[in-house]
Amino acid sequence: MHTDPVASLDIGGTKIAGALVDGNGRILVRAQRPTPAREDGETVMRAVEAVLAEVSASPLWASATAIGIGSAGPVDASAGTVSPVNVAGWRGFPLVERVRAATGGLPVTLVGDGVAITAAEHWQGAARGYDNALCMVVSTGVGGGLVLNGKLHPGPTGNAGHIGHISVDLDGDLCPCGARGCVERIASGPNIARRALEGGWRPGPDGDTSAAAVAAAARAGDPVAIASFERAAQALAAGIAATATLVEIRIAVIGGGVANAGEVLFAPLRRSLQDYASLSFVQGIKIAPALTGRDAGLVGAAAAAAALGGRDGTAAAVSG
Amino acid sequence: MHTDPVASLDIGGTKIAGALVDGNGRILVRAQRPTPAREDGETVMRAVEAVLAEVSASPLWASATAIGIGSAGPVDASAGTVSPVNVAGWRGFPLVERVRAATGGLPVTLVGDGVAITAAEHWQGAARGYDNALCMVVSTGVGGGLVLNGKLHPGPTGNAGHIGHISVDLDGDLCPCGARGCVERIASGPNIARRALEGGWRPGPDGDTSAAAVAAAARAGDPVAIASFERAAQALAAGIAATATLVEIRIAVIGGGVANAGEVLFAPLRRSLQDYASLSFVQGIKIAPALTGRDAGLVGAAAAAAALGGRDGTAAAVSG
Repeated sequence: MHTDPVASLDIGGTKIAGALVDGNGRILVRAQRPTPAREDGETVMRAVEAVLAEVSASPLWASATAIGIGSAGPVDASAGTVSPVNVAGWRGFPLVERVRAATGGLPVTLVGDGVAITAAEHWQGAARGYDNALCMVVSTGVGGGLVLNGKLHPGPTGNAGHIGHISVDLDGDLCPCGARGCVERIASGPNIARRALEGGWRPGPDGDTSAAAVAAAARAGDPVAIASFERAAQALAAGIAATATLVEIRIAVIGGGVANAGEVLFAPLRRSLQDYASLSFVQGIKIAPALTGRDAGLVGAAAAAAALGGRDGTAAAVSG
Repeated sequence: MHTDPVASLDIGGTKIAGALVDGNGRILVRAQRPTPAREDGETVMRAVEAVLAEVSASPLWASATAIGIGSAGPVDASAGTVSPVNVAGWRGFPLVERVRAATGGLPVTLVGDGVAITAAEHWQGAARGYDNALCMVVSTGVGGGLVLNGKLHPGPTGNAGHIGHISVDLDGDLCPCGARGCVERIASGPNIARRALEGGWRPGPDGDTSAAAVAAAARAGDPVAIASFERAAQALAAGIAATATLVEIRIAVIGGGVANAGEVLFAPLRRSLQDYASLSFVQGIKIAPALTGRDAGLVGAAAAAAALGGRDGTAAAVSG
C-alpha cells in the first residue's frame, strides 16, 4: 500500500495517540496522552503536540511522507476543522493547519474516526478484498465508514458512513443528536444497558450495569437481557440493510466493545438482517467481527492518508 | 458529455421506449411499444426488438456508439439480467446479451430505472453541478439513484440508491418486499391515498382516489389529506437524512407523480428534514423538484452508457 512510513493521530475524548505506521501496517513508534477534554482548546492542542514530539523524536520520523488524522466527530475535512462532541474546547478547531505546522509541513489527511477504522479493516481486517463494505464500531456510540468501488469513501467532509445517526424508527425516542430513533439510540452499549434495566434486569453483586454485564446475563439465559440485545440487533440490521440498499455493500464488519458480546449480538443480527435485507441485490450480506484491535484508529488514519492523499475526489480532505 | 449519439432503452411495466440521444441530451429518434407484461419472456423481448428496429431504421443509427438500458428493477448489471417485478415473464432474463445481439454488437450498459433518471437529472436537471446527490422518483413506487464524488454510482448490480426500500420504521407495516416500514410503504402514491381513505377522507363525485386527488383535497385544507402527505413527507425526510448521513449528499431531487403535489409535499418535507438531518455535516440539504420530464429514463440511460461504458469501477455493469 505504501512503503515509506506514514504518521498518524487517533484523537478521541479519552486519549490522543500518535504513531508511525509502516507499509505493512505495523506500528513502528507509538505515543499517547490522556485527552484534557475539559480544558480549553490550546491545552488540548498541547497534548497533540506532545504526542507528535514524542513520535517525531524517532530517527524513523525523517522518512515519514504524510500524516493521517482520525478524529472523533464531527469533523469537517473540507475546512480542516474538528468539533468532537466530547472535547468542548474544540469547536471548529483548525486541527489540519495546526498539525501541518507542528510537523514541519507534512501533508495532512483528516477523516472521522469511523472512516479511519474502516480504512484499517479494509487494509488488514475483515473487509480486506471487499470492494463494497460497511465497517461499524458499536460501543458507547455507534460509528462507521464505507468502502465503495474498492476505495475508502470519506465523503466531502470526512464523515460518511455515520450509521449511528440514521433513523430506523421515525417515531422513536429522541436521540441527543436531535433526531428520533437513531441506530445509536437503540443499539449502543449504554442503550442496551438502559433497556435491560428498564425491563427489570438487575446487575450482580458487583453492581456492573455495563452492556458487557447484560451480555453475560444474556449468555446465562436472562430473557430481559436477551431481548435487549435482540432489539439492538434489530436496529443494527435495519441500518445495515438500509446501507446495502443505498450503496450495495457486501459485508458489514462490526467492532467495538458491544461486538465483544459475540453470538449474543451476532446471532439475532443475522436473523434480523434476513427480515430487512429483502431485495435480491442485498441478500446474503456477510456479517463479520472486526479483526483490527486497539490500534485500528492509528493504522487506519495512516491508511487513509496513503489512500486519499491528493489522489482522488477527496482532495478537499487533504491539506499540504 | 458525448458527441456521437447513444442509443437507449427505457423498460417499464407499462411501456418500452427506445431512442437515439445526442450529445446535448436531445432525442433524435424515438419509438415506443406497450409492454406485454403478462406475456411470456420472448413476447416481451419481441416488443424490445420492434422498438430497436424502429429506432435503428434511422440513418443516424449508423453513428451510434453504445446503448444504455434503464430497466424497472431489480436488475443485475453484473450478470446482465433483469427481473422487473411487473414483468412476470422476465426472471433473470439475459437482456444485455439479447440487446447486444439485436444491435449488431453495440456495447450495452444496464442500470436500474432510478439510476437512469439520476443520470438524466445530473446531466440536464436539478442535480446538475452537484458532486453528491440523491435523485428520487415518488410515484406508484419509490425509487432513486446516487451521484457520489461527481459520478453516477450504480453499484455492482446497478440498483444502488433504492431508497424506497430502506426501513425508516423498523416495527412498521409489512412491505410487499418483505421488510417493514420501508419508505415506499409510507410515501408512495397508493399509500398516501390508502392512509387518507383509512383516516376518513372521501373522494369527490368523480370517485378519484389517487394521490393527486388527495393532494387537491390537502390544498383545499382537508386535515386528513394534509396529514397523509405530512406522514409521507416524514418518511421521505428520514430516508433522505439517512442517505445524507451515510454518503454526504448535498441535494435530494424528487420527481414522479407524487412530486406534482408541489408544496403539499415539499413544505412538510423541508420541515421534517430539519428534524432528521441533525448532524452538522447533513444540515442544509437542498430539496428540489426534478426538471427532466417524460423522457428522463431514455436520456438518462444514454447518459449512463456514456458515463459508465467501460470507463470506471462499474465495468461489471457493461458488456460488449
